Amino acid sequence: MKVVALAGGVGGAKLVDGLARLLLPDRLTIIVNTGDDFDHIGLRICPDLDTVCYTLAGLANPVTGWGRSGETWSALESLAELGGPSWFRLGDRDLGTHLERTRLLRSGYRLSEITQRFCQAWGIKVCVLPMSDDPISTWVDTDEGDLPFQEYFVRRQCQPRVKGFHFVGIEKAKPAPGILEAIQESDLRIICPSNPWVSIDPILNIPGIKPALVASPGIKQPIIAVSPIVGGEAIKGPAAKMYSELGFHPSALSVARHYGARSNGGLLSGIVIDSLDQDLEDSIADLGIRPRVTDTIMKKPDDRKRLAASVLDFRTRLNS
Amino acid sequence: MKVVALAGGVGGAKLVDGLARLLLPDRLTIIVNTGDDFDHIGLRICPDLDTVCYTLAGLANPVTGWGRSGETWSALESLAELGGPSWFRLGDRDLGTHLERTRLLRSGYRLSEITQRFCQAWGIKVCVLPMSDDPISTWVDTDEGDLPFQEYFVRRQCQPRVKGFHFVGIEKAKPAPGILEAIQESDLRIICPSNPWVSIDPILNIPGIKPALVASPGIKQPIIAVSPIVGGEAIKGPAAKMYSELGFHPSALSVARHYGARSNGGLLSGIVIDSLDQDLEDSIADLGIRPRVTDTIMKKPDDRKRLAASVLDFRTRLNS
Repeated sequence: MKVVALAGGVGGAKLVDGLARLLLPDRLTIIVNTGDDFDHIGLRICPDLDTVCYTLAGLANPVTGWGRSGETWSALESLAELGGPSWFRLGDRDLGTHLERTRLLRSGYRLSEITQRFCQAWGIKVCVLPMSDDPISTWVDTDEGDLPFQEYFVRRQCQPRVKGFHFVGIEKAKPAPGILEAIQESDLRIICPSNPWVSIDPILNIPGIKPALVASPGIKQPIIAVSPIVGGEAIKGPAAKMYSELGFHPSALSVARHYGARSNGGLLSGIVIDSLDQDLEDSIADLGIRPRVTDTIMKKPDDRKRLAASVLDFRTRLNS
Repeated sequence: MKVVALAGGVGGAKLVDGLARLLLPDRLTIIVNTGDDFDHIGLRICPDLDTVCYTLAGLANPVTGWGRSGETWSALESLAELGGPSWFRLGDRDLGTHLERTRLLRSGYRLSEITQRFCQAWGIKVCVLPMSDDPISTWVDTDEGDLPFQEYFVRRQCQPRVKGFHFVGIEKAKPAPGILEAIQESDLRIICPSNPWVSIDPILNIPGIKPALVASPGIKQPIIAVSPIVGGEAIKGPAAKMYSELGFHPSALSVARHYGARSNGGLLSGIVIDSLDQDLEDSIADLGIRPRVTDTIMKKPDDRKRLAASVLDFRTRLNS
């Protein structure tokens, strides 16, 4: 079985780590959101790509879920002493990544080539692809004006009220080399438990990706999402707050509606929801999306593998 | 008494630190070589400026003489893991300086403004000026071709045989704002025990600086050098090797000849040489330069102050 997974940061990284422990390396392709990428203190920073790669390489900080384990903070301290901008937390080891990526980008390498090179250096065997080599930036439209994603997310701590989103550069962006082929060859497409608005929608809105995902009969190549909303709350990040501010009840049902039923012009054949949300099963089924109920919160490494196994198993049930 | 000091890296930094402990802050202006500055992994690095400032701020690594104390090396380790260039040793705290300087340069600030800002943040009260705001790069002409300074100095460990030097960009460079005024107002101009070829000559070759240094009667505004060569060896760095390869005997006498006697169209009224070189006193005096013999090796912080006091005292003797 070949699997393609669409992922944002922490939640997505944990699920793909579980998948990577179950599948042969050449059976898993991970397409990562780059809408959060930005230029900061002269460096190109790709938060979701790095979170996914650090997690797969066993280099991630187990407490925060982002950044690196055994991190030091000397450079940022020194920069802050000089009055430099320190609102975006950059550890020293993490800085090494941004410095080398920025250097290679300036030398003419594409982000997908650099990612491949980094994966090789870090011993990551599955295929990790940025959603595009073209720069795309997610903007959050708020009651205080439109903000670049990191300004909203980190600097303003998600405080401004959200009115919508837009993705600058997306109309002309192309999927990174290999993405459309990987989707075409896959037997299962997974939408990871990442923020639908700002982690998954940017990937889905790159011209060519959504059509590729839904091009084939749903039964043989289903799309299964894992809800990032559990008991009305996001496991991490502002997804629930975003749903509320946009006028939706934050729930796994809203996530199911967001992506829509494959049978009804949408994406999903199935969605994995948490045991806490069992009462939503029927409403989800009414949309034409098969629900599967299981424990979805990934606290320990074994939880990742268990959830990944449940998603893979769900596919075989969908086909039966 | 107002003093201007021309300085390169480690040796110069130690002497100006001694001077800063003896003089009121508004009485000391330090003009620092920037010919060693270079662009590396996307950062503008100014080794001599940083060594001088770190030393004055008490932030310097006491063992190496360059870099910072309490340094960590995570970023460079992480960059090296990814196959990035790690031949130039950049500590994490030091990186904070380069990141912020590069950010400010890209925002349009001049190097002298940035240096002033950094001095303020680090609590440095004396005036530290880069020799120029214009980029100047020292090249070492060797038997293996012409090499940018850091390639010769760090990457090649000074191994290629030196044939000469040239300073790209120097013809059109202007002294940084304040330099000519500080020289004009000074009662004493000190050439620190820095490498004459690659630390002091770049400063002297900026159009306007040498004429300003020798514009006034030598007796009232003398120039005094401190020899960086002791007992035929450089205290630090390749100065002695350079003298030999260029066909000169490396000695305090060669240093005195290098700068020349003020009375004879050169620069110096006096030169401070080490007790080990007492036998050179007469030959130096024959050049028309007054020698002063004292212990010039600065191992401990008190040595810096003692040598600085000796140079200041030497000026009053020159005038008597």
